Amino acid sequence: MLLGRVIGTVVATVKAEGLEGVKFLVVQPLDKHRRDHGAAIVAADAVAMAGPGELVYFVASREAAEALPERFVPVDHAIVGLVDQVTLSEDDR
Amino acid sequence: MLLGRVIGTVVATVKAEGLEGVKFLVVQPLDKHRRDHGAAIVAADAVAMAGPGELVYFVASREAAEALPERFVPVDHAIVGLVDQVTLSEDDR
Amino acid sequence: MLLGRVIGTVVATVKAEGLEGVKFLVVQPLDKHRRDHGAAIVAADAVAMAGPGELVYFVASREAAEALPERFVPVDHAIVGLVDQVTLSEDDR
Amino acid sequence: MLLGRVIGTVVATVKAEGLEGVKFLVVQPLDKHRRDHGAAIVAADAVAMAGPGELVYFVASREAAEALPERFVPVDHAIVGLVDQVTLSEDDR
Amino acid sequence: MLLGRVIGTVVATVKAEGLEGVKFLVVQPLDKHRRDHGAAIVAADAVAMAGPGELVYFVASREAAEALPERFVPVDHAIVGLVDQVTLSEDDR
Repeated sequence: MLLGRVIGTVVATVKAEGLEGVKFLVVQPLDKHRRDHGAAIVAADAVAMAGPGELVYFVASREAAEALPERFVPVDHAIVGLVDQVTLSEDDR
Repeated sequence: MLLGRVIGTVVATVKAEGLEGVKFLVVQPLDKHRRDHGAAIVAADAVAMAGPGELVYFVASREAAEALPERFVPVDHAIVGLVDQVTLSEDDR
Repeated sequence: MLLGRVIGTVVATVKAEGLEGVKFLVVQPLDKHRRDHGAAIVAADAVAMAGPGELVYFVASREAAEALPERFVPVDHAIVGLVDQVTLSEDDR
Repeated sequence: MLLGRVIGTVVATVKAEGLEGVKFLVVQPLDKHRRDHGAAIVAADAVAMAGPGELVYFVASREAAEALPERFVPVDHAIVGLVDQVTLSEDDR
Repeated sequence: MLLGRVIGTVVATVKAEGLEGVKFLVVQPLDKHRRDHGAAIVAADAVAMAGPGELVYFVASREAAEALPERFVPVDHAIVGLVDQVTLSEDDR
């Protein structure tokens, strides 16, 4: 999983089958200092509670679909947790 | 999923089994500001409506095949949505 | 698998289904000289014994879920070994 | 899928089970301008007709094995099409 | 698959279930000129004959587990061939 911050929403009316009703958010991956790391991705919201500004962690690749009610869908990024706290070792702060 | 823009088409007569009839497009991945990000990829068009210039989001890796009528095919990128609108938080515009 | 060092912990109360009880750690990937390599990731602790500062190796992508008691969970990084020793050829030290 | 050019062949007598008879080629990934992009990879030739110099597209990761007669083999890159033509939008030429 | 060179060994006594008896080697990925490319990875030795200094090719991601006697194991890199010879087109030498 990677840490990320929700930075936006995506509206798409024409979608592949199985994606109706899935909410898609724009997520910016972060490094350990919570600085932007790489390009923003589009993730399904598997916790159904993530909103803009929130710190989350998300899965990439095949496991993303396991987070959704319907598992055989073409989804490869999903938010699977809302982060309350990240504690780093002193050397890594 | 990643945001991308359709920038071209690919014609291939010799293909692996299972790929007959699948339409392949050249897609340029984009960052949140819709600037080019990384090399263009070749994606199957799972919504069957994507055309040059269009803003889309696509899956990479195994989940791409889930987007096609025949699922056990050697495809690892597929367009799964035509984007109507992306709304970013103010700080990320 | 990649070598990494455990550098922190993540607390998340809202999680996708199936992730209750799984311990998540922040892991910094390392190169062969044990220097930081790329952004830190969040990994499930499949050996249930990893702690801050420890040298580990972890799997990424689908195979991570194979390391957990419940296999159909949305997890894509897991610590699968605590490293006792890495021996490099002389030219690569 | 990514565009690539076949640049060589690999001979290996000691192989993992299931790989006997599979032809392996060295493929250089290309960007949209057909310039080298990233390191060359070793791909199974699933169309059985690819030769040095040829423009191809290939799958990476799990889907590669779907392109071969025997599907449960440890292969993660496969050439799945010989490219006849790539047409790009005017802005992307 | 990627070309790599075996550069070391890893000893780990605490491992995830299913990894007992699997031999892990440190492998440095190489580009077509056999120069180091990216960070070294830890791979299972699926040919059971790879040793330090040897030129190999390895799979990454899910397909790695297909190379092992027990397939449902958390392994995402495996050496699947010992390379006898790589022949490149003249322009790519």
